[in-house]
Amino acid sequence: MTVELYHFEPNANGGKPLIALFEKGVAFESRWVDLLNWEQHQPPYLAINPKGQVPALVHDGTTITESTIMGEYIDEVFIGPSLRPGDAAGRERMRRWSRFGDEFLGPSLSMIAWSQFIAPMMKQRPQAELKKALEGVPTAERRSAWSKTIHNDFHPEELEESRRRLEASIVRLEQQLARTEWLVGTQYTLADINLFNMAAPLPIFCPLEANIERTPHLLSWITRMRERPAVVQALAYSRDSLRTL
Amino acid sequence: MTVELYHFEPNANGGKPLIALFEKGVAFESRWVDLLNWEQHQPPYLAINPKGQVPALVHDGTTITESTIMGEYIDEVFIGPSLRPGDAAGRERMRRWSRFGDEFLGPSLSMIAWSQFIAPMMKQRPQAELKKALEGVPTAERRSAWSKTIHNDFHPEELEESRRRLEASIVRLEQQLARTEWLVGTQYTLADINLFNMAAPLPIFCPLEANIERTPHLLSWITRMRERPAVVQALAYSRDSLRTL
Repeated sequence: MTVELYHFEPNANGGKPLIALFEKGVAFESRWVDLLNWEQHQPPYLAINPKGQVPALVHDGTTITESTIMGEYIDEVFIGPSLRPGDAAGRERMRRWSRFGDEFLGPSLSMIAWSQFIAPMMKQRPQAELKKALEGVPTAERRSAWSKTIHNDFHPEELEESRRRLEASIVRLEQQLARTEWLVGTQYTLADINLFNMAAPLPIFCPLEANIERTPHLLSWITRMRERPAVVQALAYSRDSLRTL
Repeated sequence: MTVELYHFEPNANGGKPLIALFEKGVAFESRWVDLLNWEQHQPPYLAINPKGQVPALVHDGTTITESTIMGEYIDEVFIGPSLRPGDAAGRERMRRWSRFGDEFLGPSLSMIAWSQFIAPMMKQRPQAELKKALEGVPTAERRSAWSKTIHNDFHPEELEESRRRLEASIVRLEQQLARTEWLVGTQYTLADINLFNMAAPLPIFCPLEANIERTPHLLSWITRMRERPAVVQALAYSRDSLRTL
């Protein structure tokens, strides 16, 4: 049995399977893919995921490329502590929180973070490199997304809407975590893992809305997450300036 | 045990739980919510789903409001034929196809369909009614989406990108269905149910790309889906001019 995880910094989607694998105690090979040097669009990685996106989990011939779906797969095929509620209603809540992250909080956070941190880094790169990099993006959707990022071509209204969504997400997370220890109740689940990397930077991006006075339960949950041995192990894969997020 | 399903026409997301419930042989109460007369934004329905979206499944005190997540819940809690593969790799493929529908094909089809069919219907309505309807939309996201629809305020580039995605979806579906009988292999699953309502109108919207010569396997799968007793039962809930889709 071989398990390989292709990933970038653990603070993005790659953190989800990293944490899940450590929680389950699964032995795996970490394969670093340097997104900022376009390794994800080179033939070796495109042979793993033709879409050129990380993370990708390769397990005995099965390749999984969507981080949220990957979490359920990891929980289903490997022994170790269960990361999903034992009842269908609990699993429904877990999937709903994960979806909220993927469709609402995640894209908004990503837009703000890329506009604020990555786009200025890109501006330092030679134009020829960026042009070549864009040409190498394998799908039209991703090419368009990368072009927007590289050129910081986000519309002010888009950024404003993303800000609004971050603030709405903070309220929603705080309300839930004021009621329950973990996102879906008393059990730590994939919902916590999936939301952790999206929620952890909120106090940095929205210090007036997410702070110890206004959102004590959210901050306490972020701290408890960071103290889990599996999360510590996953975050140890951080390599660069994004580490502080 | 009570099962109530709040839904609109079965050809949209409401079709997913309708088909799944009939496949499992679950007795349920159908609660029609007339989207085109704004019933989804009235207090009685907002008490069920504060977001004002259908479908919603209410089962013994548990309310589920995301149609894809609903499918897994229905398969988990009710007896009857299994609608999910028995192996984790199969369930991964099933979830990946469902996600493809929710994130790629579905939104594109929805934009084209609303622009082409619903927006012209809206144009016939009194301005005062439309203004009042918009004010009643409970969330900013949905208000923005309804405003775009009502005013047919879709950007030409958006519509063009949606068209491109429909055509890419046709190719992807045909390639898969040329290889396997159902979307994830030999077993009929929630992936087929989830994609059916999005794929069935493709020969109407894209007759040059989806037709018996170019996509015989896609058309054969649509026909086989339409012949299933559970699908026939679900489609019988159609009431209005959208029926032909």
